[in-house]
Amino acid sequence: MAEHIKIVEVGPRDGLQNEKQFVDTAVKIELVDRLAAAGFANVEAASFVSPKWVPQMADGAEVMAGIRRRPGTLYSALVPNLRGFEGALAAQADEVVIFGAASEAFSQRNINCSIAESIARFEPVAAAAKAAGLRLRGSISCALGCPYQGETPVAAVVDVAERLLRLGCDEIDVADTIGVGTAAQVGRVLRAVGQVADLGTRVSGHFHDTYGQALANILAALECGVRIFHSSVAGLGGCPYAKGATGNVATEDVLYLMRGQGLSTGVDLDAVVDIGQWISERIGRPTSSRAGRALALKRA
Amino acid sequence: MAEHIKIVEVGPRDGLQNEKQFVDTAVKIELVDRLAAAGFANVEAASFVSPKWVPQMADGAEVMAGIRRRPGTLYSALVPNLRGFEGALAAQADEVVIFGAASEAFSQRNINCSIAESIARFEPVAAAAKAAGLRLRGSISCALGCPYQGETPVAAVVDVAERLLRLGCDEIDVADTIGVGTAAQVGRVLRAVGQVADLGTRVSGHFHDTYGQALANILAALECGVRIFHSSVAGLGGCPYAKGATGNVATEDVLYLMRGQGLSTGVDLDAVVDIGQWISERIGRPTSSRAGRALALKRA
Repeated sequence: MAEHIKIVEVGPRDGLQNEKQFVDTAVKIELVDRLAAAGFANVEAASFVSPKWVPQMADGAEVMAGIRRRPGTLYSALVPNLRGFEGALAAQADEVVIFGAASEAFSQRNINCSIAESIARFEPVAAAAKAAGLRLRGSISCALGCPYQGETPVAAVVDVAERLLRLGCDEIDVADTIGVGTAAQVGRVLRAVGQVADLGTRVSGHFHDTYGQALANILAALECGVRIFHSSVAGLGGCPYAKGATGNVATEDVLYLMRGQGLSTGVDLDAVVDIGQWISERIGRPTSSRAGRALALKRA
Repeated sequence: MAEHIKIVEVGPRDGLQNEKQFVDTAVKIELVDRLAAAGFANVEAASFVSPKWVPQMADGAEVMAGIRRRPGTLYSALVPNLRGFEGALAAQADEVVIFGAASEAFSQRNINCSIAESIARFEPVAAAAKAAGLRLRGSISCALGCPYQGETPVAAVVDVAERLLRLGCDEIDVADTIGVGTAAQVGRVLRAVGQVADLGTRVSGHFHDTYGQALANILAALECGVRIFHSSVAGLGGCPYAKGATGNVATEDVLYLMRGQGLSTGVDLDAVVDIGQWISERIGRPTSSRAGRALALKRA
């Protein structure tokens, strides 16, 4: 039997959050529902952050209230603090996502405190999630590089991973937020993280394709034993640090790779190609998925 | 010392041949000269095919006559037959490139004869190249998949490789003409080709990024021991079998990968980013290189 890979579809949250325009709540709901129907076991569906900071995600409660829950799909929500957590809990999220940067410069510039402080602030959120029986995921941003301080030291990533695990995270994401990492570096970072967390069950790879490296990085991560990957249908998102550049790796490209590797994802690639075409029309820009475009052209 | 990788820049020939419009001879000459100055040890500069079939390449002789030869750079020309070879010889090409498909269906549809016949027809070209002291390269198209018959059997690739080697080819290209291959398949094909040709010195990987897989495929090929890769600045080319889809892998993305892997190419990535910006403006379309775009945005 083919080995299983969990693909976490982050388009509705990480993707749409970084698109310029506000996407209608009804479209978001349809997006989440169509993705769940395509077979994703985990969809990052909403964010409970202040609409002052992230207006694109202001309708998280409405999105979560509007979706049809598919048995077997886990719906995740990003939460920046206890208030956000309460929103996610009320909205019946299955998993809440907290985060910390592996770069001091990024942490200071973005949230005006140190990495250690920023993660310590999540303690009450983590405790509340555990008390409520929710799954807890911790995302390590800038795990390969930072727009302000360059390549991230491996030890900094391991340190954040340990802090997130101590908070009780079930899963931690090694996230190349700006897409600068390359395969050999991915191997070095993941092998180090593997010293503190089981790579096969508790670590996910979140790669951006800003420098075209995402699939090579995923291949390197597969070779390290990672079995959970994040991706975004049609490459929704873009890069907040380089307008016009590519952001999240496209789900279609990742599914195409996994199929070629003989790995099972449980996700219907053809259905995802349709969803990618549909959402790209809705937001009025071409897909950034190469496999999605090629497969759609082949049908035409 | 870092291990060396030879990058064969194919933009001026394989790239521009597949762009819609005719590119002025002066622009082609400048492109070849700028690429050589950036440090490429091998530039595929021209094609000596009938202008009836490939009008974009009708000025091969003028291009070869107009370039400034850089010591240390090998200038290659594609030749379909003895007449083409004579053009390449008169134009002082350093290397001539012949080709055969690994797919019977592709061979029949494109040149109306079997694979074996098509390669046998190159015998006089190969003999003439050897007699003239020119380097001879043989390209195996559709080595991973074919638009007409799907996945290419590994044995068919090995068979073409052996035929090309018997003709005297110094180097053979395993070319994923339609970009459908994935990493595991690349490994299977290259390990089989490695039974008949030394992967480290005589086999090159020519990958298209149509399905977004090219860099992962290059990584897989590196792991097999391949040390020669083809790429096209700014991803010049596109896919002749799926209009609008991505074609040749972009040189900038490949150089970025190699640098990350600690491999030396002798090529100046910054200079290639400049050339990619310049030629994209000249042909009036955005670059399809993700690293090229990200690096250019970073400068802006």
